[in-house]
Amino acid sequence: MPTRNSGLTPTTRPEFELIERLRSVVGSHPRIPLGIGDDAAALACDGGRETLVATDMLLDGVHFLVDECGPYLAGRKALAVNLSDLAAMGGRGLASFVSIALPHSQPMSWADELMQGVIDLGAEWNCPVTGGDTNSWNGPLVINVAVVGETLQPQSIRRSGAKPGDAIVVTGALGGSIHGRHLRFTPRLEEAAELLRIASPHAMIDISDGLSSDIQHILAASGVGARIEAAAIPVHPDVTLHSGLAGLHSEDRQAWLTHALNDGEDFELLFTLPLGDWERLQAEWRHPTPLTRIGVVTEGQGCMLVGNSGESVPLTAGGYVHQFG
Amino acid sequence: MPTRNSGLTPTTRPEFELIERLRSVVGSHPRIPLGIGDDAAALACDGGRETLVATDMLLDGVHFLVDECGPYLAGRKALAVNLSDLAAMGGRGLASFVSIALPHSQPMSWADELMQGVIDLGAEWNCPVTGGDTNSWNGPLVINVAVVGETLQPQSIRRSGAKPGDAIVVTGALGGSIHGRHLRFTPRLEEAAELLRIASPHAMIDISDGLSSDIQHILAASGVGARIEAAAIPVHPDVTLHSGLAGLHSEDRQAWLTHALNDGEDFELLFTLPLGDWERLQAEWRHPTPLTRIGVVTEGQGCMLVGNSGESVPLTAGGYVHQFG
Repeated sequence: MPTRNSGLTPTTRPEFELIERLRSVVGSHPRIPLGIGDDAAALACDGGRETLVATDMLLDGVHFLVDECGPYLAGRKALAVNLSDLAAMGGRGLASFVSIALPHSQPMSWADELMQGVIDLGAEWNCPVTGGDTNSWNGPLVINVAVVGETLQPQSIRRSGAKPGDAIVVTGALGGSIHGRHLRFTPRLEEAAELLRIASPHAMIDISDGLSSDIQHILAASGVGARIEAAAIPVHPDVTLHSGLAGLHSEDRQAWLTHALNDGEDFELLFTLPLGDWERLQAEWRHPTPLTRIGVVTEGQGCMLVGNSGESVPLTAGGYVHQFG
Repeated sequence: MPTRNSGLTPTTRPEFELIERLRSVVGSHPRIPLGIGDDAAALACDGGRETLVATDMLLDGVHFLVDECGPYLAGRKALAVNLSDLAAMGGRGLASFVSIALPHSQPMSWADELMQGVIDLGAEWNCPVTGGDTNSWNGPLVINVAVVGETLQPQSIRRSGAKPGDAIVVTGALGGSIHGRHLRFTPRLEEAAELLRIASPHAMIDISDGLSSDIQHILAASGVGARIEAAAIPVHPDVTLHSGLAGLHSEDRQAWLTHALNDGEDFELLFTLPLGDWERLQAEWRHPTPLTRIGVVTEGQGCMLVGNSGESVPLTAGGYVHQFG
């Protein structure tokens, strides 16, 4: 027979206070008839669009080191990764739901800081904290955020729609996010909206595991292959500035490329679209985040990485690129 | 500068496999155009109802002891508590989203068992697992479930609608859930549907912290008070059978009452409704779960507990009932 433990009264006094503070901080929202403070929140859904739900659990020591980054950035990241998921569906957030397991050792002000990181990013993207669950325990910090949102158009942009001949495009630049960008990145919601205004992407994903992994998700779901041009992959300055490599030798550039392909947590958009759409996109794109065409969707399956002199090697998820020079 | 850690590739191979297995287990659903396997799930929302979202995080050592109850019941509970929240809003579930942090020490079969607990309960209540996030780490098991659902009627039943003169009613019986019921309880979705078919409750909550706490949530949200009759409170056999007390002395009955009031995790419905509705409810109620009228909503504020001979004491959240005999 289990002994009585704190499980029967998980919502202790300080946590009620956190809920009250949250309720006062988060204002009213026309799309949310009922927010924080009841058994569940209530959302008003529009007809004619898909309602989207994303959820991610972030763990201290795995997805962030809270002793180094502080609770504010940990909370911010927990919402940001979910907003990135909604952007990758061609959507936007509507309401966020935050569950936290707080270490007993931390004061309430620490929890407030964490929630402020979520609240501020939610306010920035019109996706307020609308509910959640707070607990404290002897374990490390855990944050789970679930976001409910909606598509910008009648249907979401899925991973499964890529077609042979499509251009493969990424926003921004890749690699080296561990140097701080993985905590501070801007979810690509504006870029997704601009993309859908101009063009009709066939498939889209956000780069969380790394380009070499995430491209495979699109290819597998779509039943197609791809050729990626190594020289076209935009390498982030976080790689080149932190690598200690001058970039004078081809080995340096390969090391950079390996980071850009595999580091992950870039939270850039990776999408495919017809060539005609790509031309229109280049002509009409006004957003400051750059777009780069890095390859083409092919018949068949698997992804080939093509070097400068035309030689190609299979690109595997998380694989190191030491096969060509 | 943080060292590179597993955070940049949280979805390792075994976890992809778990997602694949989930995808194959969970069938298609007319209200879920897009389920597991993309950046987010997509739900088709009806007009004319409120969309509901509930989320709860359950922690090993706090909400369950997984070494004792096993992963199946831990997973089951994580969904059940959310379905209970939706029942308490006058709603039902539509899709569930499961995030887990798995201890590295556990084999994949253990994670499968956990997910099966969620899947089975989701299938029972037509609320399939539709997405989520899986991670493994050095910490204890963490499960977060977010459920998206909808109201059965145009508007949800909130905590804030109680009115003076309302009858206060509970489903089932209270106390002693720690002896196993907190893992195996049936969320009161059928009872909520039957209630709404017959009557128009003004306010409703599920009993998670304990009657003495949860009644206060209704009273505070509604700006009213209440009188609860001690003798009317239905004490669960889990209390009387496990207490080691014969019930011969009034002290025994007070000890039982204290359990019924404060143990929590009963996951019964607590609601208020006009007296006329209560009479109709008694006449037309066909569900096997019993209903008990335990008190009345009053003007003013605070909750009084009334003893057999008419004496009354303030009922405080989690307080022991040693004041009268």
